[in-house]
Amino acid sequence: MPVASKLVASKPSWANSIDIVLVSPRNPLNIGAVARSMANFGFCNLTVVAPYEPHWHEAQSAVGAEDLLESAKVRSTLAEALPSATLVFGTGTLEPRRPEQPVVELPALAPIVRDEFARGGRIALVFGPEKHGLTRDDLSFCHRLLTIPTNPRQPSMNLGQAVAVCLYELASRLPQLESSPESGPAPAPSNTAATSSNLDLLTGLIEESMIAAGYSPRAMQTANRHDLRLLLRRLAPNAKDARRILGLFRRILWRLNRPRRD
Amino acid sequence: MPVASKLVASKPSWANSIDIVLVSPRNPLNIGAVARSMANFGFCNLTVVAPYEPHWHEAQSAVGAEDLLESAKVRSTLAEALPSATLVFGTGTLEPRRPEQPVVELPALAPIVRDEFARGGRIALVFGPEKHGLTRDDLSFCHRLLTIPTNPRQPSMNLGQAVAVCLYELASRLPQLESSPESGPAPAPSNTAATSSNLDLLTGLIEESMIAAGYSPRAMQTANRHDLRLLLRRLAPNAKDARRILGLFRRILWRLNRPRRD
Repeated sequence: MPVASKLVASKPSWANSIDIVLVSPRNPLNIGAVARSMANFGFCNLTVVAPYEPHWHEAQSAVGAEDLLESAKVRSTLAEALPSATLVFGTGTLEPRRPEQPVVELPALAPIVRDEFARGGRIALVFGPEKHGLTRDDLSFCHRLLTIPTNPRQPSMNLGQAVAVCLYELASRLPQLESSPESGPAPAPSNTAATSSNLDLLTGLIEESMIAAGYSPRAMQTANRHDLRLLLRRLAPNAKDARRILGLFRRILWRLNRPRRD
Repeated sequence: MPVASKLVASKPSWANSIDIVLVSPRNPLNIGAVARSMANFGFCNLTVVAPYEPHWHEAQSAVGAEDLLESAKVRSTLAEALPSATLVFGTGTLEPRRPEQPVVELPALAPIVRDEFARGGRIALVFGPEKHGLTRDDLSFCHRLLTIPTNPRQPSMNLGQAVAVCLYELASRLPQLESSPESGPAPAPSNTAATSSNLDLLTGLIEESMIAAGYSPRAMQTANRHDLRLLLRRLAPNAKDARRILGLFRRILWRLNRPRRD
């Protein structure tokens, strides 16, 4: 069946395991350009976080708009946009901020993604708004900072072009890696990384426990949540680890809220 | 001197040996996006062929327009835009046309460019208008057809994104190749490829000779010029070869136009 084989060829095996996430994009032309390059390189999962409604509507209803703008998910927070991702890359330039997580340069991305897939994981690439990029808070949901090597005199890229370059890199290098004999067998499922939503659940529970234990004054709450998110992503517990830690903190919290009477 | 070293770092050694050529771009936003990505990846030579004047003016005078739009060369034909290039890549999709020259996929471009530089050559990347891309006639000035591997269901890329992806590929892979020990010493200068304008001179002279010899009916002229251009680019004579062939045809033409009386 030539039609079926064409469809298979046009949707690579990894296309469903990578989410493209745009945080508060402003320019409808940029949104359209992102969708266009996703279609060019065979990506199909787009999530938009807190879009500016009129511009989002304009992008969706533009002449020639891609089908995947129609099927894009809209979420109000970045946490809700990353329910099942196990490895989240936040994109941006290094300057002026000091990175709080490991930095990956785009030409080194494909082998990392390949290894995460081998562990049964799921990837998200997060792109910030045109003007200022991802905030420090957005980045606290990201395991890695992904940078595109650019000229120090003009480091900041147009959103549609940055997305195109990232997707090109993955679409052109992942198939080469998949067919190379180096890639070993997939490890046991227990090795699967915890999802972003599991980590968020854990963050919430640990934070509640900190408060219940009187460890953190309420005024410190936001800063602690930020550091906690980053810490958990740095530790990168697998799914089983995360379940255990969750169980432990559920017990701790229960005990803290119901002190023994003896 | 940290300032000087920063300037050097931001202008890679090959940046001056690659020309970016846009043929009749229409959309001022696309022109701006091309300039932006050239600045992002350290490229500085932009030539625009037969631009639509009001849109070109609009792109040049846009707020935040790149300096290199100011210094861009404007030429009325593609031939005039390629005076000193020794290896010209025309970009485009393979379908529906049957390629008349060798096809290079973008992930394989950097080693070819590196080898051409080692011969003392100069590269041009030519991008066609947004709507229909490069014409068959445009492509007859190109040694190779450069394609970006895309999804067969949506193969055609936005101009600004296509340029960004090509420049990213060169900017990220050329430095790796330059520092690798594989690259041998530069060959003798006699090995330098003939420039595009030398080949055009030769094409004209051979064509004149064909006419003078009664080989080609005048009606066939355009088709012959097209095939001749492609033939010379396929043969890829070096600069010395080209001078010799030019000399031969000058003599032939002189003889044809002044038949011996004996």
